[in-house]
Amino acid sequence: MFKKILIANRGEIALRIIRTCKEMGIKTVAVYSTADKESLHVRFADEAVCIGPAPSAKSYLNIPNLIAAAEITNADAIHPGYGFLSENAEFSRICTENGIKFIGASPEMINSMGDKASAKDTMKKAGVPTIPGSDGLLTSAEQGKKIAAKIKYPVIIKATAGGGGRGMRIIKSAEEFDKAWNDARQEAKAAFGNDGMYLEKFVEEPRHIEIQIVGDQNGRVCHLSERDCSIQRRHQKLIEETPSPFIDDDLRERMGQAAIAGAAAINYEGVGTIEFLVDKHKDFYFMEMNTRIQVEHPITEEVVNYDLIKEQIKVAAGIPISGKNYYPQMHAIECRINAEDPKAGFRPSPGKINVLHIPGGHGVRVDTHVYAGYTIPANYDSMIAKLIVSAQTREEAIVKMKRALSEFVIEGIKTTIPFHLAMMDDEGFKSGNFTTSYLDSYDFSKV
Amino acid sequence: MFKKILIANRGEIALRIIRTCKEMGIKTVAVYSTADKESLHVRFADEAVCIGPAPSAKSYLNIPNLIAAAEITNADAIHPGYGFLSENAEFSRICTENGIKFIGASPEMINSMGDKASAKDTMKKAGVPTIPGSDGLLTSAEQGKKIAAKIKYPVIIKATAGGGGRGMRIIKSAEEFDKAWNDARQEAKAAFGNDGMYLEKFVEEPRHIEIQIVGDQNGRVCHLSERDCSIQRRHQKLIEETPSPFIDDDLRERMGQAAIAGAAAINYEGVGTIEFLVDKHKDFYFMEMNTRIQVEHPITEEVVNYDLIKEQIKVAAGIPISGKNYYPQMHAIECRINAEDPKAGFRPSPGKINVLHIPGGHGVRVDTHVYAGYTIPANYDSMIAKLIVSAQTREEAIVKMKRALSEFVIEGIKTTIPFHLAMMDDEGFKSGNFTTSYLDSYDFSKV
Repeated sequence: MFKKILIANRGEIALRIIRTCKEMGIKTVAVYSTADKESLHVRFADEAVCIGPAPSAKSYLNIPNLIAAAEITNADAIHPGYGFLSENAEFSRICTENGIKFIGASPEMINSMGDKASAKDTMKKAGVPTIPGSDGLLTSAEQGKKIAAKIKYPVIIKATAGGGGRGMRIIKSAEEFDKAWNDARQEAKAAFGNDGMYLEKFVEEPRHIEIQIVGDQNGRVCHLSERDCSIQRRHQKLIEETPSPFIDDDLRERMGQAAIAGAAAINYEGVGTIEFLVDKHKDFYFMEMNTRIQVEHPITEEVVNYDLIKEQIKVAAGIPISGKNYYPQMHAIECRINAEDPKAGFRPSPGKINVLHIPGGHGVRVDTHVYAGYTIPANYDSMIAKLIVSAQTREEAIVKMKRALSEFVIEGIKTTIPFHLAMMDDEGFKSGNFTTSYLDSYDFSKV
Repeated sequence: MFKKILIANRGEIALRIIRTCKEMGIKTVAVYSTADKESLHVRFADEAVCIGPAPSAKSYLNIPNLIAAAEITNADAIHPGYGFLSENAEFSRICTENGIKFIGASPEMINSMGDKASAKDTMKKAGVPTIPGSDGLLTSAEQGKKIAAKIKYPVIIKATAGGGGRGMRIIKSAEEFDKAWNDARQEAKAAFGNDGMYLEKFVEEPRHIEIQIVGDQNGRVCHLSERDCSIQRRHQKLIEETPSPFIDDDLRERMGQAAIAGAAAINYEGVGTIEFLVDKHKDFYFMEMNTRIQVEHPITEEVVNYDLIKEQIKVAAGIPISGKNYYPQMHAIECRINAEDPKAGFRPSPGKINVLHIPGGHGVRVDTHVYAGYTIPANYDSMIAKLIVSAQTREEAIVKMKRALSEFVIEGIKTTIPFHLAMMDDEGFKSGNFTTSYLDSYDFSKV
């Protein structure tokens, strides 16, 4: 087992990793930017090294400084957390070259999953369902119609140079095809000077469902069921839960087995997540793979009773996993508490926390690095806490979350607590019947 | 179900009860003394009523003021928490007379269990093992020897007027009897002017093991297994855990069934605890019954996944229990964090908390009413937080507790955190092999 792990991250995830290291008897090294010298991860680690000024490029993304910090402290492994360098193939490679175990994916795995086209290809070959469509650009409307007839309507055609919805049309039947094709190409030509188009199956009423997996060095992979992350604003997850109110046992198992097949195909080692879109017909399609621990991992931990960071460290040290899959025994929900003003377009609200009371009690978990008197720097991600509840049923978890949110006192800054409180009373959320675009039409003024 | 519950208590247990009421959709009324106006239970309740000045007799024990507060707020039930009026038969009676449901035992149950002699008698009749001995005072050494031969040595003789160990002798065999008898009577005569003596089986190497029970209005009673509270200082529990490292499945079931029989014999309604002494031979003896929720109830909640306050409220509202027993699925430990200086004889250390960081993460629960900037009044119990951890095994729970304690920052006052940290490294505690007198010989200077 490792003797000392350097944590190449900050905030709650740095603390989260320190916690597990302490429980495993592993020493920890915190690194910090000058903006973070008052951070708790600095206080709670066994050692701490300043790695540069506030801008991330000069500190948390500064590979030479991180390697130097590991070397002067004699750390034998580096945990990258999430974000920053956690999916950086070069960092993974340089750690290995310097004899430091990178607790994450190999450069090859990171690269193979980092490029979307090749990731999709790899998964398709492994038998994981991917969104069907044209192989590259369409040469004609006729070719498009042939493919659409095969993969079934609705389909979507997209300008290869597109963005912001321009040069894009959803087509529900063959009759609509020619007009949509001509309109989209014209629009693309005007907007981008390029009318190249490709076609994909249109995923109707998609939910974002991801499967947590763990693989070991012997090629064994298990899954730990799903997380439903459909409550998003501009692709930022705000609320996650497990089990998904949309997934039944059969679909869970099929998605779990698909995720295992995908991870096994690349001999995946470590913890990882395979993200799927699931449509209203309960068909699921590979979106991407995250080769790292995820922000929302605690909801899985709560319902399957499994320390994912511990497992990640054990796997990195060569300890085999049991190989059995894990299924939710409870219902867990996570709300991301961000220093943002939900009434003002989620504008960041850094500053000093004057008063803080953290909720507690039965079934409540809080992962946070903030304390009363702490000043949230403007330089980083605005997430300041993760509030996780677990209960026997989804209904009980929702009332528990509401209760916990109602006693979460953070004064001095704006937070997303009022938004989450409103969501716990929101009929759409409570029904469990929502898609990834649910918040697009949400009236944030009522928060 | 009740519409509004008045909580006749303060501190963490008042908050604890508010939490469950919120989750059940029940409104809450906090009461507070003038010393507690900055308390969180006042902030988090739907309404709050000041019931008098700081001394408890004038506020938290002031029955007319409590009843008046319930009446002006239209509360239909009162939850007494623990301590204060929770086992006060008169308060229970007056609540009922005023048409307010007392969420606790009836006056009759409180009285029958409040008097030790009658409680022992009742339990004995119900078939619950009690400590055997003389029925009342011994008339002669010969009579004592006869009883001792029957109940087996070692026995203890005690002066009926005794206290502080005087007029008390442990007798290991018949040969020692006469001398001990004469010495103890002489000592008692000199010290108390009364040489009346009684005899009991001497419980060797006792552990304090209590069984949690719940009974409903239909006479159904279930048990929720045991809590081991042997780590005590001057009869004050400091650390509790479940399951007990000393109890096997067979003994757990026998103790559970004895507790059920005892509670059923008095038609017990509500949550309650039957405390036993368990000796080194794994024989167990009834000590007393607590007709209320206990401080250490959360460890049971964590391992059986059951909200005891919720059940208490449901039972008081007439909702029947399932009747099944609950067994630990995990291992949980609670450390009582007191504002006391463990290096100075646990002298209370009230005052202002300047810096506070509460531990969190997987398997960590904190029940507390304090916050940074809060001033702990000198008027009340010094317990300021309960730190509860749960994990798959006792070993894992101990390292988790150590980790959680190590990140619990409370600046401005002295606390028992250093004592608990030392205990988590203490070989005696870690072995699981300790009795209620373990701390008598503990060297607190090493804390």
